[in-house]
Amino acid sequence: MKLQSLIQQILQKRSYLCVGIDPDEKLLPNSLSSIGIAGIEKFCLSIIDATAPFCVAFKPNFAFFEAFGADGFGLLEIISGHIRKKHPHHFLIADAKRGDIGNTSARYAEAILTKLNFDAITVSPYMGEDSVKPFFLEGKWVILLMLTSNKGSENFQKLSVGMSGEPLYVEVGRNAMQWGNTENLMFVTGATHPDELKKIRQLFRDYFLLIPGVGAQGGSLLEVSQSALNESVGILVNSSRGIIHSSSAEDYLEQAVLASSMMQKEMEEIMRSKGLVQ
Amino acid sequence: MKLQSLIQQILQKRSYLCVGIDPDEKLLPNSLSSIGIAGIEKFCLSIIDATAPFCVAFKPNFAFFEAFGADGFGLLEIISGHIRKKHPHHFLIADAKRGDIGNTSARYAEAILTKLNFDAITVSPYMGEDSVKPFFLEGKWVILLMLTSNKGSENFQKLSVGMSGEPLYVEVGRNAMQWGNTENLMFVTGATHPDELKKIRQLFRDYFLLIPGVGAQGGSLLEVSQSALNESVGILVNSSRGIIHSSSAEDYLEQAVLASSMMQKEMEEIMRSKGLVQ
Repeated sequence: MKLQSLIQQILQKRSYLCVGIDPDEKLLPNSLSSIGIAGIEKFCLSIIDATAPFCVAFKPNFAFFEAFGADGFGLLEIISGHIRKKHPHHFLIADAKRGDIGNTSARYAEAILTKLNFDAITVSPYMGEDSVKPFFLEGKWVILLMLTSNKGSENFQKLSVGMSGEPLYVEVGRNAMQWGNTENLMFVTGATHPDELKKIRQLFRDYFLLIPGVGAQGGSLLEVSQSALNESVGILVNSSRGIIHSSSAEDYLEQAVLASSMMQKEMEEIMRSKGLVQ
Repeated sequence: MKLQSLIQQILQKRSYLCVGIDPDEKLLPNSLSSIGIAGIEKFCLSIIDATAPFCVAFKPNFAFFEAFGADGFGLLEIISGHIRKKHPHHFLIADAKRGDIGNTSARYAEAILTKLNFDAITVSPYMGEDSVKPFFLEGKWVILLMLTSNKGSENFQKLSVGMSGEPLYVEVGRNAMQWGNTENLMFVTGATHPDELKKIRQLFRDYFLLIPGVGAQGGSLLEVSQSALNESVGILVNSSRGIIHSSSAEDYLEQAVLASSMMQKEMEEIMRSKGLVQ
């Protein structure tokens, strides 16, 4: 998906919501938890169809599928195929946090971006340039971990580095701008760091940011939006558990619709207040 | 596998060789490349059986399996089962370089260490403590990326950080020693950094190091051994392509035996010269 198409979708739907597809079998309604992997499949596809009107992106996290072994990996193929067919204008992100030496990253890129046909993949920067570059395939996106939403982001990402004394996450971003550009590179920046988000927006003005950590992890949608929106919107805000496991009873779809539509409405208001939509 | 068992295996076999199982379908002999995933399976299992006498560990890299989708993931299950049954004293490393927020890392740990039953997993440190700790399951090992063998290791891993001015890779190691210990934590340190290996050995004296980058990537077995051996051996040296794809003709097994047995012999000589074996 091209940058302009993504922005167009966001403006049309008045939503920059990304729904994280991280199915936890312990939180499924009884009718689905009793039928194994078929229940997970039905859960994921129904959640996707129900929330599609309110979001512009879906983000399955691979851990929650690998936990089911080969069947789980097969389910990723089914989900990707389903979204391509029924929701072709949604941006499809593989939350896989891969990164390895060059020839190995190339195999991950082939597996996830080409064969599974995801639009984008989250990539860990630790191994540097040759571990990241193989993911820049034609028409695909790298979403590089910059400042993550978890507590452990304090351990290394915020350390001041080198001559500049800038935090590592800024150094990661500065390097990455030499590997990609605003049309194939985004950054992961957690909602749990509102002050740093403002700084990141100043330094990386035109880059899209994928922002997890709203909801269950404690970030505020209004606050992160005010810190990080730019004149092309420039953010995707992810919610996973807060939407898909908003209920673990048989009304899970109604509750997911409610949670995602409420986020969409809040986003619409924020966009209107910023003059991004009328 | 316990630390003492691993050391015992190394001393008995006079080998600290880890064979990397990274099958590239373009480098298979014709008889195997023509039959799809069944050829990959036959290749991997025959390589494992042929090289088992000369090595103490096997390390499949997940990228080379995910490239075959659900079938590839299924093949990882077959490989793990095969090794557990036929080579129960070999140390089985998942080269997966995972790492995510806590609840997600826990799912990766479940998928790879519990369900696939690997002994150890390589983990990326970028997301910090809560992304690493879920992998410390009872009887399992974390092998944390410290200083990798690729060129991109220069980008971030060698930056001096914080008050100490130590390079990031040292800071990673120092933090990790608070999360694990010598009986459940190893570090990945590339063979392509012989000078840094000496420093790492001094700073992390009793920790096992997993050393990739010998052979195709340019590191020297003798040099890295001299830099990094400790009184309990303390290293696993990995070779992947240099062994498994040493020939792409029908004699691939003979050539893999030749390459792995030569490395074992060189290791035996080095261990003898250090007084580690008689």
